[in-house]
Amino acid sequence: MASTISPAAAAAALASIATPTTLVGQHQLYTRIRLATPADVPHIHKLIYQMAVFQNETHLFTATESSLATTLFNSPPFQSFTVFILEVSSNPFKNIHSPAFLPIERTVLVDHVAADPEAETFKSGVVNENDDDDDDVTVAGFVLFVPSYTTFAGKPGFHVEDLLVRECYRRKGFGKMLLSAVAEQAVKMGFKRVEWSVLEWNVNAIKFYEEMGAKVLTEWRVCRLTGDALEAYGDANY
Amino acid sequence: MASTISPAAAAAALASIATPTTLVGQHQLYTRIRLATPADVPHIHKLIYQMAVFQNETHLFTATESSLATTLFNSPPFQSFTVFILEVSSNPFKNIHSPAFLPIERTVLVDHVAADPEAETFKSGVVNENDDDDDDVTVAGFVLFVPSYTTFAGKPGFHVEDLLVRECYRRKGFGKMLLSAVAEQAVKMGFKRVEWSVLEWNVNAIKFYEEMGAKVLTEWRVCRLTGDALEAYGDANY
Repeated sequence: MASTISPAAAAAALASIATPTTLVGQHQLYTRIRLATPADVPHIHKLIYQMAVFQNETHLFTATESSLATTLFNSPPFQSFTVFILEVSSNPFKNIHSPAFLPIERTVLVDHVAADPEAETFKSGVVNENDDDDDDVTVAGFVLFVPSYTTFAGKPGFHVEDLLVRECYRRKGFGKMLLSAVAEQAVKMGFKRVEWSVLEWNVNAIKFYEEMGAKVLTEWRVCRLTGDALEAYGDANY
Repeated sequence: MASTISPAAAAAALASIATPTTLVGQHQLYTRIRLATPADVPHIHKLIYQMAVFQNETHLFTATESSLATTLFNSPPFQSFTVFILEVSSNPFKNIHSPAFLPIERTVLVDHVAADPEAETFKSGVVNENDDDDDDVTVAGFVLFVPSYTTFAGKPGFHVEDLLVRECYRRKGFGKMLLSAVAEQAVKMGFKRVEWSVLEWNVNAIKFYEEMGAKVLTEWRVCRLTGDALEAYGDANY
């Protein structure tokens, strides 16, 4: 009831819109979305594995740190395969040098910060300026995307290949932050489309994507040629 | 009935497997798949428009020759947006210089060559060596594809964005030739996947793709963010 809120508490609540302030029971979390570097490969590799576990497809997981390192960083950012890393910290981030993409920093108030059982494993590998080994920067998720092409518009777009937020950081809006960062970059570059895939039974995800403004194309199906069926085309006599 | 075929005709039919020979009522057609060049832009533009007509989506067609020319040729072939052009001719092709991709030439026997009402419009713009203005090389179709990424494999793939064979050249196996050329290139480059989309009610296309070895992913749906819904993300305060 409004009458039980003191003027001071009301002022604090209003102030928190502009400058988040920790209220009782809430925790302040600093988040940053930045471009991945080769130093992130061990984390990216583990995140992809967690995605394979989540999708019950570990039998399809053959990526190695080496295969990622040799394929992900061969082009300037946004011209081919591009990875954004989501980091979280309980302290403000120190600056990193990233001329191709200004990192997106947000401070969020969360009701509850679950203990991160893999905090050590996912300690961020980025060397900060004036590093004093006192950082608690942790990799919480990633998104991998590639340029696509909208022929009808004669303009590029982005296709989001994969997005994952680690279990203990879910339900905090981080998935939306990663996807929004891709959309924002698309607009900046004059791209006309962002596309991704969703499992048709994942109604929560579909609702969430529709709230973000996306349309689900119900009539289209993806055709995939892989494995031996693809290799057969390597023989010129197919 | 077999008994009505003369030994000479049988020999000719067998010979045609190795070296196609024109039989009664059949026509020999030379085909070539080659990389597109900026000189092909007017044809690519018209082919995309024909696709918009075919899909009843001309209201979405905003591509211009200029938008295609400025976006399609900024990277070496296969590293970003790539276009293969399918040409047909009633005469053997003259050589073209194409170090990045050896053109794929096939001679096909077709039962019937329909008159091409747009032969002049689609006269191929490639200047052949020793050009004597006597060519009848015509652009019959195209495929536009871009690299994608298979995270579980840690390897690239190709996503086929669009494929079109002009009306009077359909039902001759040319669509398969274009798609096979992309698959062959994927294998050559060590890529692990070729994907494309199909309308779920297009049962003939689905049957055809399955015969080519592709699997239709029935559970996945494509989410698309475009137009004003996408532009909204250009405002950092979304």
